[in-house]
Amino acid sequence: MDRQTMTRELRVTFQPSGRAVYVLPGTILLEAAARAGFIIETPCGGAGKCGKCLVRVTSGACEPCAEQAAALKAEQLRQGYRLACKCRVQQNLTVEIPEKSLFQASHKILAEDAGGERDLRPAVTKRFLQLAPPDREDPASDAERLSLALDGAGLDIAVLRRLSPVLRQKDFAVTATLIDRTVVALEPGDTTERCFGVAFDIGTTTVVGTLVDLRTGMDVAVASLVNPQTSYGDDVISRIKRCRDEADGLRQLHDAILKAVNAITREVAHKAGVDRHDICEAVFAGNTTMEEILCGIDPLALGQIPFVPAFRNTVSMRAADFGLDVCPGAKVSVFPQIGGFVGGDTVAGVVATRLDQTHEPTLLVDVGTNGEIVLAHKGRLMATSVAAGPAFEGARIVHGMRASKGAIEKVVADGDIELNVIGNARPTGICGTGLIDAAAALLRKGVIDITGRVLGPDELPSDLPQALRSRVVENASGQYDFILVHEKDSGIGGPICLYQKDVRELQLANGAIRAGIAILLRHAGVDPSELGSVLLAGAFGNFIRRNNARRIGMLPQIHTDRIRFVGNTASFGAKRMLLSTREKEYAERIVRETRHIDLSLDPEFQMEFSSAMIFPETE
Amino acid sequence: MDRQTMTRELRVTFQPSGRAVYVLPGTILLEAAARAGFIIETPCGGAGKCGKCLVRVTSGACEPCAEQAAALKAEQLRQGYRLACKCRVQQNLTVEIPEKSLFQASHKILAEDAGGERDLRPAVTKRFLQLAPPDREDPASDAERLSLALDGAGLDIAVLRRLSPVLRQKDFAVTATLIDRTVVALEPGDTTERCFGVAFDIGTTTVVGTLVDLRTGMDVAVASLVNPQTSYGDDVISRIKRCRDEADGLRQLHDAILKAVNAITREVAHKAGVDRHDICEAVFAGNTTMEEILCGIDPLALGQIPFVPAFRNTVSMRAADFGLDVCPGAKVSVFPQIGGFVGGDTVAGVVATRLDQTHEPTLLVDVGTNGEIVLAHKGRLMATSVAAGPAFEGARIVHGMRASKGAIEKVVADGDIELNVIGNARPTGICGTGLIDAAAALLRKGVIDITGRVLGPDELPSDLPQALRSRVVENASGQYDFILVHEKDSGIGGPICLYQKDVRELQLANGAIRAGIAILLRHAGVDPSELGSVLLAGAFGNFIRRNNARRIGMLPQIHTDRIRFVGNTASFGAKRMLLSTREKEYAERIVRETRHIDLSLDPEFQMEFSSAMIFPETE
Repeated sequence: MDRQTMTRELRVTFQPSGRAVYVLPGTILLEAAARAGFIIETPCGGAGKCGKCLVRVTSGACEPCAEQAAALKAEQLRQGYRLACKCRVQQNLTVEIPEKSLFQASHKILAEDAGGERDLRPAVTKRFLQLAPPDREDPASDAERLSLALDGAGLDIAVLRRLSPVLRQKDFAVTATLIDRTVVALEPGDTTERCFGVAFDIGTTTVVGTLVDLRTGMDVAVASLVNPQTSYGDDVISRIKRCRDEADGLRQLHDAILKAVNAITREVAHKAGVDRHDICEAVFAGNTTMEEILCGIDPLALGQIPFVPAFRNTVSMRAADFGLDVCPGAKVSVFPQIGGFVGGDTVAGVVATRLDQTHEPTLLVDVGTNGEIVLAHKGRLMATSVAAGPAFEGARIVHGMRASKGAIEKVVADGDIELNVIGNARPTGICGTGLIDAAAALLRKGVIDITGRVLGPDELPSDLPQALRSRVVENASGQYDFILVHEKDSGIGGPICLYQKDVRELQLANGAIRAGIAILLRHAGVDPSELGSVLLAGAFGNFIRRNNARRIGMLPQIHTDRIRFVGNTASFGAKRMLLSTREKEYAERIVRETRHIDLSLDPEFQMEFSSAMIFPETE
Repeated sequence: MDRQTMTRELRVTFQPSGRAVYVLPGTILLEAAARAGFIIETPCGGAGKCGKCLVRVTSGACEPCAEQAAALKAEQLRQGYRLACKCRVQQNLTVEIPEKSLFQASHKILAEDAGGERDLRPAVTKRFLQLAPPDREDPASDAERLSLALDGAGLDIAVLRRLSPVLRQKDFAVTATLIDRTVVALEPGDTTERCFGVAFDIGTTTVVGTLVDLRTGMDVAVASLVNPQTSYGDDVISRIKRCRDEADGLRQLHDAILKAVNAITREVAHKAGVDRHDICEAVFAGNTTMEEILCGIDPLALGQIPFVPAFRNTVSMRAADFGLDVCPGAKVSVFPQIGGFVGGDTVAGVVATRLDQTHEPTLLVDVGTNGEIVLAHKGRLMATSVAAGPAFEGARIVHGMRASKGAIEKVVADGDIELNVIGNARPTGICGTGLIDAAAALLRKGVIDITGRVLGPDELPSDLPQALRSRVVENASGQYDFILVHEKDSGIGGPICLYQKDVRELQLANGAIRAGIAILLRHAGVDPSELGSVLLAGAFGNFIRRNNARRIGMLPQIHTDRIRFVGNTASFGAKRMLLSTREKEYAERIVRETRHIDLSLDPEFQMEFSSAMIFPETE
């Protein structure tokens, strides 16, 4: 690849964290922020109307567009304030995101509270007590003494075990941590200042943990790790099989994820200078398989028809029983689930986005090996899942790879191919977003037809630039492939191509999601054009180019402004549950009220899937 | 000792177990049975009236006394039936104890039930279920499927973890084990036949576990072990100190007792051919210190004024949290306690004996290093404990030893000293019962005066047989000691003596118990002569010669028929709680309603104790 054809990447640095991402010119700031992990509020759907996505460009600000000029005051514009939903990146930028523009569970809860009062209602409360020491006139047992001061609360066995010395350490001045009318921890002196929780998103590939201060609702530290279960299989099916086929399979997978969860807990506690034993609650959200294995539950039934989960309602237990190395009596809650492949992460997504409360029909889509789709319409929810396969993760694609260093993550075709490679390295393969970009770009240029066929030189449009035309090469089967990176520019000692069979794999993955969406819409009697918005959740969703996903038909044909990134909603939903017991009730209500559409054996799905593999005729 | 002076021991063998004990001629069969561990029913207090203590002497039966002849039919007498409370051992015997003559928790419950129906109400129930497998029309999760069939019961995490494979192992035919509306175990097929519990008596010295069939209420196996904590200290005080002074002390003691408890559980399960995982409930009774350490509770407060326990009410937890290796979700309950040194074993004793329901004033006495005393009068209970010290365990006695092989366990003085030695070996020391016997015998013979002084040759009664007189020897302090075993008959290469200072130690131990009883009686306004009965509980109590204990003043001056052995009431009480949830409520009511008299700092006790050290003037 010539350096000339390498697209110039622009750096966007976000303050105060200093996190930076590289994007192509013209990228909307909202998208750049999402890629850096900052989900900005866009209640108006990115229409430039609500002004909630206010950011301040402290270096490199361009002239504001008409919409921004109308929405903001002259003084604000002078100070660099812009609307993230309208501001495009044209040069290197430094951007400050005000706290209130960030999509945060705690923030949302504040915003929703009509009375303006903080609605922090964690299951955990702490109370400081100065008890009277026992004497001959009052020889009550230590347990009774404490319980009496707490209106008859019970005592966790871990508390009872250390009760006598803890009471006496500071002359019967103690702080009790209460959950569900049980004292789960007791400390000498006044420690009411220290009360923390952890929220976890247990992804098939990545595990993210957030330490939250339960007094303020604010995040205090975040850490993540690759899910170590990936060494036992990339996808959930291979892990279910391992549990079924290996005598020790479940124990291995369970130990692996517990180890990761405990490592993350230690890391966030260390980062924030928090004692692990001050962590009194934990909430976990993940897909059905991840949640079952996380709890040490045998996922046998998820691997056989009719794919029922072991549990549906929230699972709660003591941290000691769970294996989480925090306060032993801490409460661990695992998100409730909707169906065999519509798990707690999807429920957490609904909790995070308040999907059931939208006024227009809204879709929540989490694209991955397993694609989960929820449709909200008139306050009712319908959910399904489709097996998209691992193409988006780079598997089954000849030069496919994960979104890591060397991966082509963005493809633009104009006079020639322009690429963005992760980590500014020589390209070594293509990841999911690059694959979608490439297919969309080549469809637009007429190199691929709607059946997914890469056209031969005779069939290519006559106006196709020569640089692109020269990239189409015949293969041994008499079909055509498309060279994305010439040998000389490649990091693998040969050209990197989009092969005809790669396009077929993409069609399968894309078709599954498309068919799932189509069936939900049909069940609800909603025309795609009526959709108020499509919310893209999850790590992959964050990086998809909306117009390209729409071009290949993965997303409905609606304006890109109505396609919104909502980020790691599993984490956000888990945090919400951590911060308020009401959210747990809300999650369980969602589970009860959501209609689960099982497409796994549905003949309608097979037909829809077949036609969904054909790309849309036009944009 | 001449063989001539060795008392001829008589063997009494009990059937069907084949257990045998050796006793002196004239021993009441009831007492022989108690020493073999069989507690026989004596509702009339051993007066030969109720006929409940019926046994059959199959070999060696003597002529019945007049009372037996009156109480039994000629045909019964011919078949060898006798009243255990009246029949004396005059030669070697073989005795059958009919099941219904045995004091058994289950039996008592049956007897009490007015309607004649069995009052077995264990916390555990088992239910067999044939569930419908899931299909596309009924895709409920496995947990919901099971819960629905059990009226919404919850699931223990251990059940949830294995739920999917267990349901499918026998086509959704399963047996659920329920405790407190939670499924604590689930097995494929119908296993309702198998439902067991274990009841434990955690003694400072001995741990006894009984496996009970919860469907029938019958014992199926018993096993015991020396409490391995003895290697860390003989008495509770030394163990409390170890927990306080050694960084790892509590963990060591906790691990030791858990190991013993699990070993006994394995043993009883093995003996009875029962799978440990079919043990669904466990109840433990022990003194305050034993119970706290058993639960892993730091006993710090028991070692400092005002000696309060960590807990008073029943402590319940999952077997997995307790560390008991049975069904992980099994319920473990630890007996409630009355005060710092009046523990769960005493409460279990009250539960076992129904002490509060007696019509006459009744004392329950458990003699040991810590002596517990409960007085029932007009339906009200008063309890106290006294530090008797370890003299009854053989400690602080020059030739003192535990009741093991070689211990002089019985002393009779007539023309000369007659002894009974445990295990038919040469004597190597004297244990608690031998000590009491020796003191009583020498008091009666006038060798010891009521102040406890061993008299010199000049002061000895003129009619004292020469054989006894010659055993009094002067020591280096100018005091006198009494030779129990001459050097030539001894197993220790020198004479075994009752030293003057041994008598002083006995006076301290005896005086403490005597003072405790006196104060309780005075508090209740009861004269000793009004006592309906004195119940002797515990392993040591079982072996005490009642007339001798009465002679030295340890027990009130009432007829020996009104002094009854009630055996290991801690085990009986624990079994009762295992068999009926009502017994748990009963135990908690006893704890609430019992007045705890703390003598530890009571000046009245010090005065009473001083005068109680003087032996009674006469029998």
